[in-house]
Amino acid sequence: MARRMVIVGGDAGGMTAAAVARRRRDEEDLQIVAFERTAHTSYSACGIPYLVGGVVTDADDLVVRTPASHRGRGVDVRIGHDVVGLDLARREIVVVADGSERREPFDLLLLATGAQPVRPRLPGIEARNIFGLQTLADGLDIRRMLEHERPEHAVVVGGGYIGLEMAEALVARGVKVAVVEAVDQPMSTLDLDMGALVADALRAIGVELHLGSAVDGFDTGSDGAVSAVRAGDRALAADIVILGLGVKPASTLARDAGIEVGTSGGIVTDAQMRTSAEGVWAAGDCVEVRHRVSGEAVSISLGTYANRQGRVAGITMTDGVATFPGVIGTAIAKICAYEVARTGLREQDARRAGFDPVSARVESTTRAGYFPGAEPVTVKAIADRGTGRLLGGQIVGKSGAGKRIDVLAAGIWNEMTAEEFAMLDLSYAPPFGPVWDPVALAARKVADLVA
Amino acid sequence: MARRMVIVGGDAGGMTAAAVARRRRDEEDLQIVAFERTAHTSYSACGIPYLVGGVVTDADDLVVRTPASHRGRGVDVRIGHDVVGLDLARREIVVVADGSERREPFDLLLLATGAQPVRPRLPGIEARNIFGLQTLADGLDIRRMLEHERPEHAVVVGGGYIGLEMAEALVARGVKVAVVEAVDQPMSTLDLDMGALVADALRAIGVELHLGSAVDGFDTGSDGAVSAVRAGDRALAADIVILGLGVKPASTLARDAGIEVGTSGGIVTDAQMRTSAEGVWAAGDCVEVRHRVSGEAVSISLGTYANRQGRVAGITMTDGVATFPGVIGTAIAKICAYEVARTGLREQDARRAGFDPVSARVESTTRAGYFPGAEPVTVKAIADRGTGRLLGGQIVGKSGAGKRIDVLAAGIWNEMTAEEFAMLDLSYAPPFGPVWDPVALAARKVADLVA
Repeated sequence: MARRMVIVGGDAGGMTAAAVARRRRDEEDLQIVAFERTAHTSYSACGIPYLVGGVVTDADDLVVRTPASHRGRGVDVRIGHDVVGLDLARREIVVVADGSERREPFDLLLLATGAQPVRPRLPGIEARNIFGLQTLADGLDIRRMLEHERPEHAVVVGGGYIGLEMAEALVARGVKVAVVEAVDQPMSTLDLDMGALVADALRAIGVELHLGSAVDGFDTGSDGAVSAVRAGDRALAADIVILGLGVKPASTLARDAGIEVGTSGGIVTDAQMRTSAEGVWAAGDCVEVRHRVSGEAVSISLGTYANRQGRVAGITMTDGVATFPGVIGTAIAKICAYEVARTGLREQDARRAGFDPVSARVESTTRAGYFPGAEPVTVKAIADRGTGRLLGGQIVGKSGAGKRIDVLAAGIWNEMTAEEFAMLDLSYAPPFGPVWDPVALAARKVADLVA
Repeated sequence: MARRMVIVGGDAGGMTAAAVARRRRDEEDLQIVAFERTAHTSYSACGIPYLVGGVVTDADDLVVRTPASHRGRGVDVRIGHDVVGLDLARREIVVVADGSERREPFDLLLLATGAQPVRPRLPGIEARNIFGLQTLADGLDIRRMLEHERPEHAVVVGGGYIGLEMAEALVARGVKVAVVEAVDQPMSTLDLDMGALVADALRAIGVELHLGSAVDGFDTGSDGAVSAVRAGDRALAADIVILGLGVKPASTLARDAGIEVGTSGGIVTDAQMRTSAEGVWAAGDCVEVRHRVSGEAVSISLGTYANRQGRVAGITMTDGVATFPGVIGTAIAKICAYEVARTGLREQDARRAGFDPVSARVESTTRAGYFPGAEPVTVKAIADRGTGRLLGGQIVGKSGAGKRIDVLAAGIWNEMTAEEFAMLDLSYAPPFGPVWDPVALAARKVADLVA
């Protein structure tokens, strides 16, 4: 008789595992059932700001694979099914659908419950038109509100990349936008000097930045909708509020069932994505991962990790060999005219991890300086003074700048020293960069400092 | 008394070494004299096709540093000085300038003589309007001919990247262009399947391709200028001919002085750029280098190598520690609407080097498929069947495709397996690529084949 693989959560981590497992085992061997709380599977969460801003017009474009398409490939997807409990002893999950609760058996279980937006318990937080942003449904709710209520003022709480992408999307919709950020810079995954470049870009499109400013609460109008955001002695007019305070792993289900959850709040797994419970795997935003440079266990919500972990789980749950090797925190975002990217450790992270960081920042161009269309790019490289090892890199620049972060990422991943990285055989032709690519130049400069 | 560092050749390799040495030693310690045959120093040879095509209008833009600027920084540059002999026993070089020969002493000598275009001894090769392309002077000669003689038909001999860049430049000048290439594909540094994509792009802008076709000679008109190119039974009308048959190291000076020259034709050096002769270094296109994947000694003419080798020579000639770590043949070119890039070994190279290559080719996009401006990109990844190690990568695609080669280069450089590379932490956001970047996707596909 076929074994039964049950997946909780129908987005990147879960459905990648389902697809990989299906390719490796046919339906006689393995039944695959996925339970998804919302109406959508396998969508690009990272595309939601572009749906809100109107860069992408059709929400269906963000859906990589619909429930029907999964079913056509032998994966039994149940949408509108909320998994509310795990009974590991009986090998059952507890599901609520259409208002009634029932139990479903499993032989193999994959938790791919994702993450949930941080929603601080502040006065007025339950007012209408205060939106988190995690699921495609959230994105569609925001878009509907923008179209029907035509808000004049928006406040984005939190200046991380999702908050900033949303700020830009709202500006594109003709809304006046203020961003309130508790720390002194937007994009706090960058060092302060690089974040300042992003702040300038936001101000240039008319975004009002309130940095070093914590939100105290929300004013509500007589209609039950938010009317202002309170931050210190300011009341910022707000017809709509976007919470961009980051996300935390949705690990409650696992924790309640006695599965080990780490200090980062994510489910603990081994490199094969196995949890502490026999026959239970986890993948995607709900797990914690090892940062290869700092050695720390971290929770970072990125589609690239979810896809790779889903692939590993799909292989190891069907008795194959695969390893998730950890992360170095590589990320990129388009913020107004700028491409903003980072990898590895910031200076402060490096110090906390016991390194002695030294950094260099270079200004260069995306093409040879004399070549038409050359755009400015600033690259920062961080290395360990004692060993010369590259620890981190950050890039802020215009078109063609950002994706160079992947080269730094590959160097950091492989524990190259800055000097080794500077001598790496990178491509060059005038339409693509200067003869010392900006990332090599930054590495060379920091190598000179540690030498 | 100051020691005397003499440099033969005033472009990338030589002048980088001069600049680095000058930063490390002041003029009381070290006198630096550079002899350059032409009138130009430190120019972007890779920019010449763009000068010919009119993308760059001012030749001065290609000059990174003029002789006067070098002199202002304490490097005594002598232009129009042709070094014709080395007398290692007496520690002197023999120089011809203004028609007279003289000797100049050195304590330290750097040979940075560059490369010279291959010029086959074919009937008619000395006709007027048959141009090689190596120096800025060559580029200016070609541009002058185009402007004054307004040729109708051009033939480019050789379908490598310089030949193809020149073909495109000539099309931009309104000239009808035929390319004659002895092997069955243009861009033979790619595998055949990838080269075919480049052939299509050339035909799309009206370039006539004669592949598998060797040139037998040139017809000359009564004015002494070339009139046609003979290739088999064809006579291709030609008012101008560009020789794009590649270059060979200019190592005769070294060889004649008894300095070791390798089988590739390049001067042999150690990783500190020291030649076989005491107190004599070499850098740039004139040297041979170790290919890190094949282990072979090769001569590859690239500005990135010349700059890096010049840096190493500048450091080691002033008693510092630096290493040139070898190459993996990373290169990029813009050919018509396409970005064409390669790194590591082709399938045939891999077989010759004793590997058992297996390859995968993927079609993907430069942005998320649904994101406006997503362009097609084809990536090929080559791995060793036995070990899974990545051996080579090739990319042909539109805007935003090509520079991804650097990520593959960093992976190959660090001897990653295809599986490890697929799991690398690369950046992702919809404006920059799909969640599996095309290079990761290609690696994943080839990893599945070797698994």
